Amino acid sequence: MQLTLHADYAFRILIYLGSQPDGHVVSTEEISQSYGISKNHLVRVVQTLNQHGYVEVFPGRSGGIALARPANRIRLGDVVRAAETNLKVVECFDETTNTCPIVPVCQLKPILGEALNAFLAVLDKYTLADLLGSRHRNGLVKLLALSGARK
Amino acid sequence: MQLTLHADYAFRILIYLGSQPDGHVVSTEEISQSYGISKNHLVRVVQTLNQHGYVEVFPGRSGGIALARPANRIRLGDVVRAAETNLKVVECFDETTNTCPIVPVCQLKPILGEALNAFLAVLDKYTLADLLGSRHRNGLVKLLALSGARK
Repeated sequence: MQLTLHADYAFRILIYLGSQPDGHVVSTEEISQSYGISKNHLVRVVQTLNQHGYVEVFPGRSGGIALARPANRIRLGDVVRAAETNLKVVECFDETTNTCPIVPVCQLKPILGEALNAFLAVLDKYTLADLLGSRHRNGLVKLLALSGARK
Repeated sequence: MQLTLHADYAFRILIYLGSQPDGHVVSTEEISQSYGISKNHLVRVVQTLNQHGYVEVFPGRSGGIALARPANRIRLGDVVRAAETNLKVVECFDETTNTCPIVPVCQLKPILGEALNAFLAVLDKYTLADLLGSRHRNGLVKLLALSGARK
């Protein structure tokens, strides 16, 4: 049970942008180099984050991306709901593709649904700002700069 | 974020066995046919369930498997802990393979860990017996028999 890379990268992008000075525009190239992850994949995640109003995209050679709202208005549970491409904990969560024959009477699905809601409810208690306390922010900036410089 | 088939099939096997009369031994062939899933994969999941003391394996031509303990002593959270081959919600949960450079200061990992614990805590409130109330048990038996007969 693992988040897809799409959701994982969504968090990484938001953390990167949140650790910058307010409104600072960053290229996806820079983020890709700092984390050592595929720029092509990153661009698709940026599209998702843009569609859901989390990042603003500035086109052009000197363009890039920035947070589209304050970090304390980005709930982590909502990021998962927006960016996780697969929240079907087991096959029967998708009725169109389910093949399990016992689904009409099986009690597992509602229990797994309750567990998934509990997972998201914990994430809803936190915002991006909780990941960016001053101590952590300084550490993030240093580690990301170091990592980017090494590429 | 989806359970692996290994954990999904573990639940299906336990539900199948739990819907049988007490101590009834069932062949993996029968379970495989009823659910329409690969027998080879099923056998590997049976090994996991056997190793964790959930099912007893009776070898030989007339052999098969049966529950090794009462259904009310099989907590659903423990089944996931035993059978889910990947509880690493994001890459940094595995320090040996992690490549994300910000892990020393990142606050996301403990929050996702808290969310995973909340997921499992919900499942710990329930046992296999909760999936097998008399109304559901009768329905399960009928649906599984029908499905098996169709193959």
